[in-house]
Amino acid sequence: MGRIYLDRNAATPLHPDVLAAMLPFFKERFGNPQSLHGEGQSALEAVEDARGRVARLIGASASEIIFTSSGSEANNLAVKGMALAGRAKGTHLVFSAIEHLSVLNAAKSLEKFGFRSTLVPVDGTGLIRPGSVEQALTKETVLVSVMLANSEVGAVEPVAEIAKLCRDRGIPFHTDAVAAAGVLPVDVRELGVDALSLAGDQFYGPKGGAALFLKKGIRLLPQIDGGIQEGGRRAGTENVAAIVGLGWAAEIALARRAERETKAQALRDRLIDGLSRRIAHIVLTGPRNERLPCHASFCVRFVEGEAMLLSLDMQGIAVSSGSACSSKSLKASHVLLAMGLDHATAQGSVVFSLLEDTTAEDIDFVLESFPPIVERLRKMSPLYTAYLKENPQ
Amino acid sequence: MGRIYLDRNAATPLHPDVLAAMLPFFKERFGNPQSLHGEGQSALEAVEDARGRVARLIGASASEIIFTSSGSEANNLAVKGMALAGRAKGTHLVFSAIEHLSVLNAAKSLEKFGFRSTLVPVDGTGLIRPGSVEQALTKETVLVSVMLANSEVGAVEPVAEIAKLCRDRGIPFHTDAVAAAGVLPVDVRELGVDALSLAGDQFYGPKGGAALFLKKGIRLLPQIDGGIQEGGRRAGTENVAAIVGLGWAAEIALARRAERETKAQALRDRLIDGLSRRIAHIVLTGPRNERLPCHASFCVRFVEGEAMLLSLDMQGIAVSSGSACSSKSLKASHVLLAMGLDHATAQGSVVFSLLEDTTAEDIDFVLESFPPIVERLRKMSPLYTAYLKENPQ
Repeated sequence: MGRIYLDRNAATPLHPDVLAAMLPFFKERFGNPQSLHGEGQSALEAVEDARGRVARLIGASASEIIFTSSGSEANNLAVKGMALAGRAKGTHLVFSAIEHLSVLNAAKSLEKFGFRSTLVPVDGTGLIRPGSVEQALTKETVLVSVMLANSEVGAVEPVAEIAKLCRDRGIPFHTDAVAAAGVLPVDVRELGVDALSLAGDQFYGPKGGAALFLKKGIRLLPQIDGGIQEGGRRAGTENVAAIVGLGWAAEIALARRAERETKAQALRDRLIDGLSRRIAHIVLTGPRNERLPCHASFCVRFVEGEAMLLSLDMQGIAVSSGSACSSKSLKASHVLLAMGLDHATAQGSVVFSLLEDTTAEDIDFVLESFPPIVERLRKMSPLYTAYLKENPQ
Repeated sequence: MGRIYLDRNAATPLHPDVLAAMLPFFKERFGNPQSLHGEGQSALEAVEDARGRVARLIGASASEIIFTSSGSEANNLAVKGMALAGRAKGTHLVFSAIEHLSVLNAAKSLEKFGFRSTLVPVDGTGLIRPGSVEQALTKETVLVSVMLANSEVGAVEPVAEIAKLCRDRGIPFHTDAVAAAGVLPVDVRELGVDALSLAGDQFYGPKGGAALFLKKGIRLLPQIDGGIQEGGRRAGTENVAAIVGLGWAAEIALARRAERETKAQALRDRLIDGLSRRIAHIVLTGPRNERLPCHASFCVRFVEGEAMLLSLDMQGIAVSSGSACSSKSLKASHVLLAMGLDHATAQGSVVFSLLEDTTAEDIDFVLESFPPIVERLRKMSPLYTAYLKENPQ
């Protein structure tokens, strides 16, 4: 049996058609899209085709797509770029407490330039109440950013409602859709957002190919200055192959999304139900329903996430214990803490995120393999021993 | 006869070994380097190998290499990151007048945060006198950035001397080596620089794979905030394939540099001598000797660069008329103007940059094809007609 990879939040393998579409741009079509000669024009054409494909995935216009090198860069560009563009009007920013670190740390950087942020709390399942965002708004607020879906707990947030609250007050609104785009149906007009980040490596596209949607007319200060690429909004030679790959991944995601969703949801539910039945003291993190179709996350009490992850890895199953961007920092997840979990429980986080080709057999293998791992780890756990002493079975 | 591509400044084709090294990272080794499982560790290992290779190319330590998505991003990170890190000490910056737009426009952005810049002039060949930099330094200067080589006019600047002036005064010094690294011998210790930008797409590596060398102990404010990638200095999922490609391109460049240089230099001289003999009113831009080995640039009076470029393109020869990052802006090059050329002459810019596989036959084809193009364009040029009237032959 091969490996079972259940960490799509961290990285997806490339769709073979995506790789095939990229290859010519490593060979004969190697030109710089800004060059006026044939080699340049051939590369430019591919970049603009890709821009159209990405735009179609999210119901945007091609001119509203800015290519970036990662979802983190797109989030930084949105948060810093939009905040700084609004600085004359005010210096107050609003975020949810469970945003990705690329949003929260960008906000922190902005403090050096006189900005201050309000973090809106979430409920025990990681959901944000639009009313809480409303309460946080002031006359000084120049940007609100709330994610569309959270990659650690799978929560899908009521972004359309929050966007409307902001729109009614003329406050620019950004959503980090890195975990959602290509997975959920995403339409920027229906959502009513001014800016939206997405990354191809979340839906079978390449690393290095990501984008920020920026609605026509919304102001933003570039964060990489230089040449005239991306309409002067993001300088640097275009990573043509990655952009082409992102475009094809978007095209494929648009065509197959619904089918992928139905399949993933059934397997996800099999996993959630199976593990909840087979393991005691296991808590589903995030909502049961308002949830990414490919996402199942838990806190397993009395064990450490990293130990579970490494044990599963040895059995050929790849999972994560939170966000890949902070997995090595060994701190309890800010997302789980914001949901009200205590530090000890938050340490037992394990996240399964399913690929398109995940099978029922894969899930059944996890259901078989995981409970004994938890049992073995708990036997070594001083916390569990103490618990048993206090609660004799 | 195939096309003759003489625009390596804009983009180089990938070395076949570089592409071969990258391919596994689009297939089985698709993991996220920050993931703790096997797929992640396999990707991490490749990233760290590449870091070592890039470090060896420039005589640095691996921990001093920060991967970025482009030379422009590396320049932005250096200029903004180092300036902002020094803001408590002062707000004065020094650049040469012929820096790349990613440096000059980053400096312009910093004006919003209270910084001001001095642009050091160059001589008629684009060379910077270290004395001019010295004169520009003040007690408030917190960053000096002077490029190692200029991609528009090929000038190789006396960076070691300038770095020493700065070091003696405790002022951090950055050099944009995007056009030089992989082409000239570059050793960060011999140069004595604190930071250095390079980009793989200048030496047969992929677009999207670039780096900033940052000397141990030199402070810098990250420009993409978020996760803990690159030691917390640059967030965002690592573009593993591009990083691997950059690493191999560096390894190959180190092995073949001297041989490539000797060959390119001979062809360059054949091109410079041949065109200077065959075309009247043609001016070599940049120095004759302190020059990139693969670089020949001219201003051809009474004709427009773009017209020459498109005519050459139709004959199967790809060249540029300046920097790819501003080629479509139709403004006269700030580099040529800084060298004292008048606007009309600067409009007639044409840049030939040679690849490793450029042959003597390619050069001879250019020597045959280009003079009749210039002649034809001049026949249509009102400027040339006026000139002939005033200077009857």
